[in-house]
Amino acid sequence: MKLNFASALHTDQYQITMMFAHWKRGNHTKRRAFDLYFRTLPFGNGYAVFAGLERAITYLQNVRFTEEDLSYIQTLSPSYDAPFLEYLRQFRFTGDVYAFREGSLIFPNEPIMRLEGNVNELHLIETALLNFTGFQTLIATKAARIRHIIGEQGTLMEFGTRRAQEADAAVWGARAAYISGFNATSNVLAGKTFGIPTSGTHAHAWVQDFSSELEAFRAYADAFPDQAVLLVDTYDTLKSGVPHAIQVGLELREKGYTLKGIRLDSGDLAYLSKQARIMLDEAGLTNTKIVASNDLDEQTILNLKAQGARIDSWGVGTKLITAHDQPSLGCVYKMVSRLEDNKWTPTLKISSNPIKVSTPGRKKIVRIIDTKTNKAQADYIMEVNEELNPAEPLLLIHPVHSFKKKTIRNYRIEPLHVPIFQGGNLVYSLPKLDEIRQFHQQQMDQFWEEYLRILNPEEYTVNLSDTLWETKKQLLDLIQQQVQDLTDTN
Amino acid sequence: MKLNFASALHTDQYQITMMFAHWKRGNHTKRRAFDLYFRTLPFGNGYAVFAGLERAITYLQNVRFTEEDLSYIQTLSPSYDAPFLEYLRQFRFTGDVYAFREGSLIFPNEPIMRLEGNVNELHLIETALLNFTGFQTLIATKAARIRHIIGEQGTLMEFGTRRAQEADAAVWGARAAYISGFNATSNVLAGKTFGIPTSGTHAHAWVQDFSSELEAFRAYADAFPDQAVLLVDTYDTLKSGVPHAIQVGLELREKGYTLKGIRLDSGDLAYLSKQARIMLDEAGLTNTKIVASNDLDEQTILNLKAQGARIDSWGVGTKLITAHDQPSLGCVYKMVSRLEDNKWTPTLKISSNPIKVSTPGRKKIVRIIDTKTNKAQADYIMEVNEELNPAEPLLLIHPVHSFKKKTIRNYRIEPLHVPIFQGGNLVYSLPKLDEIRQFHQQQMDQFWEEYLRILNPEEYTVNLSDTLWETKKQLLDLIQQQVQDLTDTN
Repeated sequence: MKLNFASALHTDQYQITMMFAHWKRGNHTKRRAFDLYFRTLPFGNGYAVFAGLERAITYLQNVRFTEEDLSYIQTLSPSYDAPFLEYLRQFRFTGDVYAFREGSLIFPNEPIMRLEGNVNELHLIETALLNFTGFQTLIATKAARIRHIIGEQGTLMEFGTRRAQEADAAVWGARAAYISGFNATSNVLAGKTFGIPTSGTHAHAWVQDFSSELEAFRAYADAFPDQAVLLVDTYDTLKSGVPHAIQVGLELREKGYTLKGIRLDSGDLAYLSKQARIMLDEAGLTNTKIVASNDLDEQTILNLKAQGARIDSWGVGTKLITAHDQPSLGCVYKMVSRLEDNKWTPTLKISSNPIKVSTPGRKKIVRIIDTKTNKAQADYIMEVNEELNPAEPLLLIHPVHSFKKKTIRNYRIEPLHVPIFQGGNLVYSLPKLDEIRQFHQQQMDQFWEEYLRILNPEEYTVNLSDTLWETKKQLLDLIQQQVQDLTDTN
Repeated sequence: MKLNFASALHTDQYQITMMFAHWKRGNHTKRRAFDLYFRTLPFGNGYAVFAGLERAITYLQNVRFTEEDLSYIQTLSPSYDAPFLEYLRQFRFTGDVYAFREGSLIFPNEPIMRLEGNVNELHLIETALLNFTGFQTLIATKAARIRHIIGEQGTLMEFGTRRAQEADAAVWGARAAYISGFNATSNVLAGKTFGIPTSGTHAHAWVQDFSSELEAFRAYADAFPDQAVLLVDTYDTLKSGVPHAIQVGLELREKGYTLKGIRLDSGDLAYLSKQARIMLDEAGLTNTKIVASNDLDEQTILNLKAQGARIDSWGVGTKLITAHDQPSLGCVYKMVSRLEDNKWTPTLKISSNPIKVSTPGRKKIVRIIDTKTNKAQADYIMEVNEELNPAEPLLLIHPVHSFKKKTIRNYRIEPLHVPIFQGGNLVYSLPKLDEIRQFHQQQMDQFWEEYLRILNPEEYTVNLSDTLWETKKQLLDLIQQQVQDLTDTN
């Protein structure tokens, strides 16, 4: 984990081979446009939460080939001669980037980032951008589902480091979870790096290290009299752990402190939390909170809440930090336009799988907001030079099921892409993490519950403008005709 | 991704709180023993492949609190006074570590690593050790399954970086896959860092960048005449891509080169590869290989092979690098013994879930090898001071179903733990990655196919010695009696 990690070698080898082949033909300065997007929502969710932009920005600002890198690259092909290596030595990102703000709600096939620059720089950076934004967006989305089930009340703690997929995933995952409403992380490095509150008290091994549980609890409370959360399941939660915690809680009270909490980490969390609540309350420890952990996710939490579990604070580990039910978002990065003879020419990647056919053209996106309710109605993707006039009604047609139409009136539009880089220069003022977190909450407030529920949400409308549709259809026809001509010729 | 990443803050906050609480009581030098292990095999597999040791070693050698770290820690609690911070400033790992060799086949509840040292150092390092070894072991295990389905023939390429869970996962995952028999990675940084062969040619965007596919193929072959693998599915695999690749292949042949390969990245890979093979062969391009990629894993590969797919080389991405069907191994780290009054006293963590009850005591582990077949018969876990005499028959009893017994004769024993650190000093000579890879292959050869098959493998026997069993039972009884006494008293 290195915050300003920007190795030019953190890429797929084919980016380097293409860079060489373009450079050799003198095509490396040709200007191109790429979109970064995902095709399907993870976890059956109705939206995703964009995260990872700041990491991507730092990378783009710093991406370089070191001398060591160049020596290594030279070993990859005898074709990589001194002039090519010199070209790489001078490599800097010089392109333009537009992106959603971090914390935004985003939807399939929306360009999360759109990039313009020379073809070689846009190749090199693909892999790292997908790697950084794909992961953080995935975790932020999972975290938003969990926060949505908890509601505004209830503390959420990210406890996943030990089960994360190596160090970066732990640290950047903690950041993503915080954006989507988690309150704290156990990872101290993430706490220091991002200013996220940290959380955590003691392990089973603490209890095992004493000749009795009571002694262990007393020792811990002695060290942190106003911060002690005692883990009560090392031997037997209700027969041993909770009674001992209560005893220590009463002793603390005599000294003027409050036992902060107890933590349940195994067993039937619904039953145990209800029983523990009764026992704590009967002892007068009504301010002592109950923390629960143990393979939690939005489904287990939903069920625990339905059973009336008395849990104040939830520690979520493995299933969040690995996005256990779908550990990859599947982001893609496709060339959408080429500048030839000073004219942008849209380009298409076809596929036998309709969902994988890309949408050609340089795009911008706006969100259609109902002026009465201030709720989002749809997103609308246009060619960059198109304008939408909110004074006129807007007809939206479902991209696949075209009988599904709606006409929108009384709306305002919010542009969703913000300029990040212009000519390689950062033109975006990075918000603080707490501002991103707040912005995310505002985004959630902009959507009706039907899009936010975690099971079978309504599909939010994302429409292409007529211009984009026409371009796509024409290009599809053209390519299919070319393939046909080829078949006829053979 | 930083090779010598060793931040002391890459830990859970509760390790720091426990360190403080022990230090405050003057207990921080007490000597303890911990085991690191997993409880259940991932993917329904019959074994796991240990990886991540080298990363763990580098961490243990370098783990430090920087001045910046200490300033941050000071903000976490008013209790963290100057003497405590000074204690952390001096922190170095001073313990003993024993571990399996990387590449070893390992099984549930076997201590993959066993550690002895002062209680505080053993707390601090827990999180990072679980994070590093858990991930690499998971990916090495997944990769071994895929290699096993491919057999010795067939090239395997790790293509997952863009879908990995951030940068570390991509790079360390590539290393883990290589250990288990992958031949190459697309990740250039992993190539440079570990000396893994790299692989990759061009993307769809290369083809889109030319006015025709044929022109794109020619341009690429021109840059890499003896290394070109042409991606043939940008428009239409059999009608456009393969014919164009053949045309370029024939042109290359006239110049004395061989078209290295074509790559299929979508569609029905079984059908397409068979058709493409026929077309290539008919054109006389019999040495041109067929590479396939597109969401492959051991199941899809098994099916493609069953359908007679003509694929020479397999690019495996998302499903390997994220361990898609089970993205966490669930490693744990438990205190197993305490040194009190110069005597090691075994300790136990109990649980209502039997599988989660830890096994007390400091352990060593041997593999029982049949002297006639040279195949592994069982693993046998003993107390560190126990000895096994191969001249005597060994009775093995299934740990749960005790009616399952077998007596082993004619065996030799291989110790599985090697000393890594003694008193904080590295006493292990780190093997080269290719030696680890070779060692892994030898390990696979030591096991019967019934344990290696990817579906419903036989359960390999792992036995505890009578001494360990007795200790465990006695401790369980003791704790249950204590809980009972407590209940009776209340």
